[in-house]
Amino acid sequence: MTLLDGKKISDQIKDEIAAEVAGMIRRGEKVPHLAAVIVGSDGASLTYVGSKVRACQRIGFESTLKQLPESTTEEELLEVVAELNADSDIDGYIVQLPLPRHIDEQKILLAVNPDKDVDGFHPTNFGKMALELESFISATPYGIMELLRRYNVETSGKHAVVIGRSNIVGRPISILLSQKGEGANATVTLVHSRTRNLPEITRQADIIVSALGVPNFLKSDMVKEGVVVVDVGITRVPDASRERGYYICGDVDFEGVSKKASFITPVPGGVGPMTIAMLLKNTLLARQRHRTRT
Amino acid sequence: MTLLDGKKISDQIKDEIAAEVAGMIRRGEKVPHLAAVIVGSDGASLTYVGSKVRACQRIGFESTLKQLPESTTEEELLEVVAELNADSDIDGYIVQLPLPRHIDEQKILLAVNPDKDVDGFHPTNFGKMALELESFISATPYGIMELLRRYNVETSGKHAVVIGRSNIVGRPISILLSQKGEGANATVTLVHSRTRNLPEITRQADIIVSALGVPNFLKSDMVKEGVVVVDVGITRVPDASRERGYYICGDVDFEGVSKKASFITPVPGGVGPMTIAMLLKNTLLARQRHRTRT
Repeated sequence: MTLLDGKKISDQIKDEIAAEVAGMIRRGEKVPHLAAVIVGSDGASLTYVGSKVRACQRIGFESTLKQLPESTTEEELLEVVAELNADSDIDGYIVQLPLPRHIDEQKILLAVNPDKDVDGFHPTNFGKMALELESFISATPYGIMELLRRYNVETSGKHAVVIGRSNIVGRPISILLSQKGEGANATVTLVHSRTRNLPEITRQADIIVSALGVPNFLKSDMVKEGVVVVDVGITRVPDASRERGYYICGDVDFEGVSKKASFITPVPGGVGPMTIAMLLKNTLLARQRHRTRT
Repeated sequence: MTLLDGKKISDQIKDEIAAEVAGMIRRGEKVPHLAAVIVGSDGASLTYVGSKVRACQRIGFESTLKQLPESTTEEELLEVVAELNADSDIDGYIVQLPLPRHIDEQKILLAVNPDKDVDGFHPTNFGKMALELESFISATPYGIMELLRRYNVETSGKHAVVIGRSNIVGRPISILLSQKGEGANATVTLVHSRTRNLPEITRQADIIVSALGVPNFLKSDMVKEGVVVVDVGITRVPDASRERGYYICGDVDFEGVSKKASFITPVPGGVGPMTIAMLLKNTLLARQRHRTRT
């Protein structure tokens, strides 16, 4: 069994990006600039945004954090988005979700200029991704594809089963895995809450990507010998014995499944770190594309 | 075995749309206006465009056919597209594919205003469709969904196998069938040229949508008893004994498969007529949405 070490691979990717940035600085070019917008003071969201901004700083990107009060109106946030769209110094930006309830999330995401949408959440980017045109691929599915590629996991002609049909993971990864080209070409089955005989399907899988959010959902009797398992679940399970008061649990019963798997991601340290690396990668791509266009 | 009679259902849909149009005329409202652009004089393309325009006229839409010479440059076509985008009388329009080789198809499709893109080929519409936002769903997959719905074919929790991963049929129908909501919620497997043991997978299917373009590909030993079969193939097979010199052949060996199927589309008279009906439906939707917005 080989561990799909997202921590290690994401460090490699960050090193590669940092080397690119060093080259930009040497040549006197503008470095990539990522902005992040957060509304309110939700603990988890602040942690996520904070680690994105720190990751930018570490690899030499410029970064801007716009922290807005919980009371920010939809109109005010749309103004901030319009400013970021207009600001030629900003290559890409993200609006941290979830937003407070009084703001229509969809309306905000639709206002983001697709050319700066490094989260890849805008329908135009999603459509371009699905149609195999140049786009920003959302960081989590992009990270999963990259992780499989770097470990030379064979996907062509393999049966991949994706568990969960969310717009940010299950749906896009099911599309990416079944596309043409290197590192894809899998036969893909998308299973979800309405699927009957789910274990019967997962037992046929050569590759399983689980993005359900149910701790320890996938047990060893639901997979076949030699399966490749990517665990996207990151549920916070309350645990008074830990200083933080919780621990992070994946969708996969690692103890049992890892005994049958040929490759498997740990949680934490699997898909999670890849997500931040691919956000940085998208910001680098945004810079390179803006440079080409102007 | 029940025939999924696309001819009959498409006539019903056209009657419903015609009734809406009659209401618009009665209320003194503007009726939907569809424009079609065709470049060159390919026989099949002219036939398709001609039948779309005639269908418009029959149900009371306004229609405009822009027939441009084969020698039209990309720049000239982009100008025509810009004019159609700007013309507030045009609710929706299509650019008939394929375009002559000297024109970049993708560039033209990206120039179409997504709000008038009744073919649903623009990435923004594709993305919105995939993300379950208001969009124009491409006519063929939309027609398949509608045909299944009108025959009350149960899809929820069923295993649907889609054969072929094209951007205009296989990919979108695989997404639509697995989405939430009425008439969807299927477990979907997308199989294609790289799939191994394809018959093993199709034999598990409760529903098969074949969009491969290989005459008589799906044989009776590849399906299980009671399967629902939707045949999207429309290959022209040369046949000197016919006046036209060819006949239209589907992906499905109808003779054999129909003996095991619970529902099956004929070819012709199945998915084909639904496609035109749904293009008209999209044009009606375009008119209604433009009215709401202005």
